[in-house]
Amino acid sequence: MNILITNDDGFQSKGIRELTEIARPFGKIMVVAPHDERSAQSSALTVKAPILYKEISNKDNVRVIATTGTPADCVKLAFSGQIDGSFVPDLVLSGINHGSNAAINIIYSGTLGATFEGTLAKRPSIGFSFCSYNHDADFSFVREYFSKIIKNVIENGLPEGVALNINAPVGEIKGMKVTRQARGSWQNEFLKTPTPHGLNAFWLAGEMKDEEPNATDTDEWALKNQFISIQPAKLDMTDYDSLNSLKF
Amino acid sequence: MNILITNDDGFQSKGIRELTEIARPFGKIMVVAPHDERSAQSSALTVKAPILYKEISNKDNVRVIATTGTPADCVKLAFSGQIDGSFVPDLVLSGINHGSNAAINIIYSGTLGATFEGTLAKRPSIGFSFCSYNHDADFSFVREYFSKIIKNVIENGLPEGVALNINAPVGEIKGMKVTRQARGSWQNEFLKTPTPHGLNAFWLAGEMKDEEPNATDTDEWALKNQFISIQPAKLDMTDYDSLNSLKF
Repeated sequence: MNILITNDDGFQSKGIRELTEIARPFGKIMVVAPHDERSAQSSALTVKAPILYKEISNKDNVRVIATTGTPADCVKLAFSGQIDGSFVPDLVLSGINHGSNAAINIIYSGTLGATFEGTLAKRPSIGFSFCSYNHDADFSFVREYFSKIIKNVIENGLPEGVALNINAPVGEIKGMKVTRQARGSWQNEFLKTPTPHGLNAFWLAGEMKDEEPNATDTDEWALKNQFISIQPAKLDMTDYDSLNSLKF
Repeated sequence: MNILITNDDGFQSKGIRELTEIARPFGKIMVVAPHDERSAQSSALTVKAPILYKEISNKDNVRVIATTGTPADCVKLAFSGQIDGSFVPDLVLSGINHGSNAAINIIYSGTLGATFEGTLAKRPSIGFSFCSYNHDADFSFVREYFSKIIKNVIENGLPEGVALNINAPVGEIKGMKVTRQARGSWQNEFLKTPTPHGLNAFWLAGEMKDEEPNATDTDEWALKNQFISIQPAKLDMTDYDSLNSLKF
């Protein structure tokens, strides 16, 4: 089995190295990841510049490639065969992201943007995130669970057009829950800072507001209760409920 | 009514000027848009640098602001009140994009990334796209329809968490259809080019493959048959069909 691994924190992050070790028993691995951090890149693509890549290492069935592209670009480039025409990915794993991609974060996340490219290439694809921004985060509680999820997906596949968005809490794990995306959004504030040129500069900040704090079937609930959240996410964004109700 | 207008082609594009003219009869307008083209930016956010903005003009009830941010950043900044605390948008319009955002393009589009921010801010939000990349595209056939759509949405609102993805074909229009997102994806190829540094550089290219060419209820069908496509798109990506079938 050929396993493509990518992320949005860059090829040197601890999370992608952990994911590589977790995936190693399942097959041959090619890591194609951004050369530095590309967080909050969503499904962004590089269209006004070319992408460059460089081989970082190639040993023990793991080849590592760093690119100048976005996470989604990395997956497209890997599937194009331009890096290695003989390596056709059977499975796409993205992460382990340093930080949650639960709730509305799914639409901003480069980790998930990359995951969706695997889904569009009709391969089972899983995005993994861990609720800690610590660069040296301790992944020891999640390894066994993430390994089980990969094994399950290899054995059972996923429905066409559906990816998995996996989020894990920090600390001891009580188990895994299949969840839905909690409703909520970022309440955005900006930090206003001066520039030497007269204009002000604004840094994006703010906090996530969970609009369903009492729901017990959401990804946010699972994380708050020490469960790993497994959200099936589909790329058809059509609101089917509206198809008959909208009149134009 | 306060109308926020943005796009991903930049504040100087013909499409955003057309949309401003179409929206003008409905209220007071603030344009907050990228200072240059930011296509294929999806819901990407600027998190590693501050955003700067500059007032370009302010006359006849239309204020124009250009920013260094992504389309989604522009909407967040406008809602933050940092530009003008007295201008709270009641409606968000994004576009008119030069090029189709039908089918899977919805996940890559900066036009739609911006639209979704309006939806998350709980305002009716509409993304408009026109199937021509021509910088001087002729929008005369679509003006009346886009105006009708805006009027309809102002009068009837939209369901919470649902945005409209509007796409219009080039040429005479037969009418409007409420549609679903056609299944399909880009079949990506890369143009390989040399660099003076020894590495090759790869330009993203390829073509969209419609996987449902015979369906008659999709956005792609509407466009091929000279109808304006109105796709209701929701930000909850959960695949509810999988919630019970997935076992972990």
